[in-house]
Amino acid sequence: MAKKIRLAKRIVSESDRVAAELARRFTEAGVFVANLMSSPGSGKTSLLEETARRLDGRLRMAVIEGDLATDRDARRIRRAGVPCRQINTGGGCHLNAKQVRKALDGLDLENLDVLFIENVGNLVCPASFDLGEHRRVVLASTPEGEDKPIKYPVAFEGVDVVVLNKIDLESATGFSRATFRRFVRQVNRTAPILELSCRSGEGMEDWLDWVRAERKAVEPAYR
Amino acid sequence: MAKKIRLAKRIVSESDRVAAELARRFTEAGVFVANLMSSPGSGKTSLLEETARRLDGRLRMAVIEGDLATDRDARRIRRAGVPCRQINTGGGCHLNAKQVRKALDGLDLENLDVLFIENVGNLVCPASFDLGEHRRVVLASTPEGEDKPIKYPVAFEGVDVVVLNKIDLESATGFSRATFRRFVRQVNRTAPILELSCRSGEGMEDWLDWVRAERKAVEPAYR
Repeated sequence: MAKKIRLAKRIVSESDRVAAELARRFTEAGVFVANLMSSPGSGKTSLLEETARRLDGRLRMAVIEGDLATDRDARRIRRAGVPCRQINTGGGCHLNAKQVRKALDGLDLENLDVLFIENVGNLVCPASFDLGEHRRVVLASTPEGEDKPIKYPVAFEGVDVVVLNKIDLESATGFSRATFRRFVRQVNRTAPILELSCRSGEGMEDWLDWVRAERKAVEPAYR
Repeated sequence: MAKKIRLAKRIVSESDRVAAELARRFTEAGVFVANLMSSPGSGKTSLLEETARRLDGRLRMAVIEGDLATDRDARRIRRAGVPCRQINTGGGCHLNAKQVRKALDGLDLENLDVLFIENVGNLVCPASFDLGEHRRVVLASTPEGEDKPIKYPVAFEGVDVVVLNKIDLESATGFSRATFRRFVRQVNRTAPILELSCRSGEGMEDWLDWVRAERKAVEPAYR
């Protein structure tokens, strides 16, 4: 058992070392990096597609896609005109810093403003792994129900922003935004909660404002 | 690295040993056991609530609820009149056989026909852990999109039945059942695909028929 604990510590610290290296590289290159986490199907890829369309090149954006299998998400992002690197984890339930470091080989960081890392769809494991990002984003969606923040606290407590997607399905799913907000606040007292629909476009400007503002907030550190 | 592999093997075999012990106990007690897996919010608890209402005591049913935190799901199941034991995993991303063995202490297996184990909401990790169950069930839901079977093949390839929930949201989400079925068949050639809505009740009888039939199929082994 002691052996197990020592081994886990060694793995974690190696991963943390690479994450710190990535954070330095991102900062030196002047790229704002956000790590997106959610359940499968909450709409991470849709949010990034819609973000690309609305930014329309005003911020130079790229995406790293994390999936167990297929390059479907990367192809969607590239169709939106955005450079994208796909990581396939095999059976892996989250991205780690080494995988991200390898994926950077295909991206020109110096000519980017914003890099989104779309993690594996999983509301548990990705939260425990630092990828060197500046900000952490968790998505939830109305069909999942209001109680996910308190049932999966690890995913919501450490994030910088909570995005509630699919508000166009609010009445069809009987979802209560007030209840959701109350549950978010039980585990995260400060993160802004952005309510939007990638499908209808409602609320998308608030998300883009958040991206622009957060990018500026980290800018003095590297410009 | 060799040390890591040996350690992992030891952990897996201990877990497998307990799972085999559970499988023997379930069979000796004459209880049909199904392990339910899905993303957070696909409707595992709703399916079990609705199953309880429709069985209405004709099969004696119990539930083990797996969650990172809270006893919300257990309380929902108990309100449906069904005995339920809650496992809180803390940060744990899946149930393991030892946790299930401990949860059995509060259940009278001899007086049960069907035991459902609702796993932690996670489309990756639970698939790798045997809980001694007779059958594995994966749920998906229309708002998650059609491509989850090929993006999370580990969750779909080893299961005995695929349940597609929330078909009442099919048109609102632009979901194609034909596409979903095609994707399921790419990773699982044999599992029946049951399409239903816990909300509207459509398709629920097919699910109950499956439960009754599968229970009978394993019956000769223990009666």
